[in-house]
Amino acid sequence: MTTESQRIAGALPLRPELRDEKPYGAPQLDVPVLLNVNENPYTPPPAVIEDIAAAVADAAGSLNRYPDREFLGLRKGLADYLGRESGVHLVPEQLWAANGSNEVMLHIMSAFGGPGRTALSFAPTYSMYSEYARNTHTAWLAGPRRDDFSLDAGEAANLIERVQPAIILLTSPNNPTGTALEQGVLASVLEAAGRVDIDGAPAVVVVDEAYAEFRREGVPSALELLASHPNLAVTRTMSKAFAAAGLRLGYLAASRDLVDALRIVRLPYHLSAITQAAASAALRHADVLLAQVEELRAERDRTVEWLRQRTVDGTPLRVADSDANFAYFGVFEDRHRIWQGLLERGVLIREVGPAGWLRVSIGTAQEMDAFKNALVEVAGL
Amino acid sequence: MTTESQRIAGALPLRPELRDEKPYGAPQLDVPVLLNVNENPYTPPPAVIEDIAAAVADAAGSLNRYPDREFLGLRKGLADYLGRESGVHLVPEQLWAANGSNEVMLHIMSAFGGPGRTALSFAPTYSMYSEYARNTHTAWLAGPRRDDFSLDAGEAANLIERVQPAIILLTSPNNPTGTALEQGVLASVLEAAGRVDIDGAPAVVVVDEAYAEFRREGVPSALELLASHPNLAVTRTMSKAFAAAGLRLGYLAASRDLVDALRIVRLPYHLSAITQAAASAALRHADVLLAQVEELRAERDRTVEWLRQRTVDGTPLRVADSDANFAYFGVFEDRHRIWQGLLERGVLIREVGPAGWLRVSIGTAQEMDAFKNALVEVAGL
Repeated sequence: MTTESQRIAGALPLRPELRDEKPYGAPQLDVPVLLNVNENPYTPPPAVIEDIAAAVADAAGSLNRYPDREFLGLRKGLADYLGRESGVHLVPEQLWAANGSNEVMLHIMSAFGGPGRTALSFAPTYSMYSEYARNTHTAWLAGPRRDDFSLDAGEAANLIERVQPAIILLTSPNNPTGTALEQGVLASVLEAAGRVDIDGAPAVVVVDEAYAEFRREGVPSALELLASHPNLAVTRTMSKAFAAAGLRLGYLAASRDLVDALRIVRLPYHLSAITQAAASAALRHADVLLAQVEELRAERDRTVEWLRQRTVDGTPLRVADSDANFAYFGVFEDRHRIWQGLLERGVLIREVGPAGWLRVSIGTAQEMDAFKNALVEVAGL
Repeated sequence: MTTESQRIAGALPLRPELRDEKPYGAPQLDVPVLLNVNENPYTPPPAVIEDIAAAVADAAGSLNRYPDREFLGLRKGLADYLGRESGVHLVPEQLWAANGSNEVMLHIMSAFGGPGRTALSFAPTYSMYSEYARNTHTAWLAGPRRDDFSLDAGEAANLIERVQPAIILLTSPNNPTGTALEQGVLASVLEAAGRVDIDGAPAVVVVDEAYAEFRREGVPSALELLASHPNLAVTRTMSKAFAAAGLRLGYLAASRDLVDALRIVRLPYHLSAITQAAASAALRHADVLLAQVEELRAERDRTVEWLRQRTVDGTPLRVADSDANFAYFGVFEDRHRIWQGLLERGVLIREVGPAGWLRVSIGTAQEMDAFKNALVEVAGL
């Protein structure tokens, strides 16, 4: 049997390591209840749409010109927002943005990874990380998580010492498990990263906080540690809390030096004038959009609670603590059957991570009812 | 003296080859007459701006959802446009797009370049090519051009045979010289590329036609050779002819197999919903926008003609034949003095390529008058 990419390889000099690969991505299916890619279920309010359209019309007036390569206006908007959200004061030069945190990560891997260098993370975690590494020829290694998906501070530090990674990728909360990173673990990782010796420099520690706005009360953000760690980067996105996955605006906060390193490897004008305008417009509506995050957090807690009260064949479902806009649950003997059964009932969730586990994004109350009803039917909970 | 990047390297594991690098880009200065980055001087007509704003407002209505990863709607629009422009029939699956041809090139280099592989071009040429190679760890080699900036078919073929590049980057017209690629040269390069053996596959030949719409009557497009060459890719952009540099929409046409290879290395959802909507809207106004291209071609020819009639210290200026929206002229003993003198008179052009040569983008008739007057004053023509 020849795969699609093997067929390509016959006529074109596709890199050997890509020959068995397929384009990444969850299935994009036309289903009534989409709970598979952790999107925010709320469409932007009319005032936000109007403001985005007006800002884009304004930017389009000089669309014949290249965009501002440094986009300091947008970077200021992001710095101000993070300041309000986390209480951490940041200047625009500490912010960086790109077309999705995908591209932010690519910039990080291009600047600090590459041949002869290793990126280290802890599995199960976001499945794109290994693709960023592959695309940048960075070696990829994933250490283990504990049974509850948390990290062991001592083991993580030991692994870092042994592997000597140039880049350490942490997640808070983690995807697909929803697990927040404990401050003690982060402190331990940062300490170990500081002892790494890459041509005389420490490892870069990236904390992916794509879902940070959904974290529970009292869970801190790694932003608080930026001032004391020039090798720390915290990535965020407007895809989730800002209900703007279609906008493709990922960003990070870090030391100015770290951001300046990313400026060397970014392709010039990577962020279009209309993306800059639309993102800045959406940021002006942060308060309205974040009010919806409150509703989703409550719905998330209700979903986790409901799942925890279910049993399959007498065994209670396992449900990971979640600080994100999704819930991770299992363990099913045949998760594909569950996934398929839900799909047949118009509810699309995601098969991802360790065998037997499933991830459901948090939708509206009605969507979660549809999910629960379908799950009861299919799994006989 | 420590450079900015050496300072970064002290505290962060910046890759060694980046330590003396600076972020790429022409100076973005606030000057009345901007003729430095080959932008189209015409702002989009009101009808185009309105249609873009309406399309973006429509897309923003579901901005909480990820964009269509395959963007076949936009790819169809691009295929239809190229069909009308060149008479070459293409299907949407033969088209690919990204945030600027920058990113299209990155996809090409990621799929077919990388460690142990070489990309070959012919200098002087677009200065970003070597950065794409650097960012993807692809070896970079530039063969020579003749004194009039054209290519020698036989020499190019010999170099390809010797170097065995995985990727050959041609340009038509070339930047910064404006030189179109002769069909005979392209045929010879394609033949040599077919004899290259990269793990049993031929080299990929990329013809960068960013400025193709500005080519003179009778100059062919490499699109005509796509059907017979599955290893050929022709890149285009909406930045120039569509007066949409701020949109960041680069694209290519190639065989389906070649496009499928790019789909493996692209980051998922790399093209935002608003970029897809805005680009599709602009494409609907192709006729209006291309009418402005006609005016610019005429202004380009007048500018080249005018420059050819000037002498410096009794020697006629050399002016390269141009099929682009810029003119390349020299040779000045101290081109920086000329550049600086123009800047002081409010006219920003570009110092780029071989010593003594300068590049001026074609602006409106008034802008070109300002350029000519300033040049006469500064260079004593």
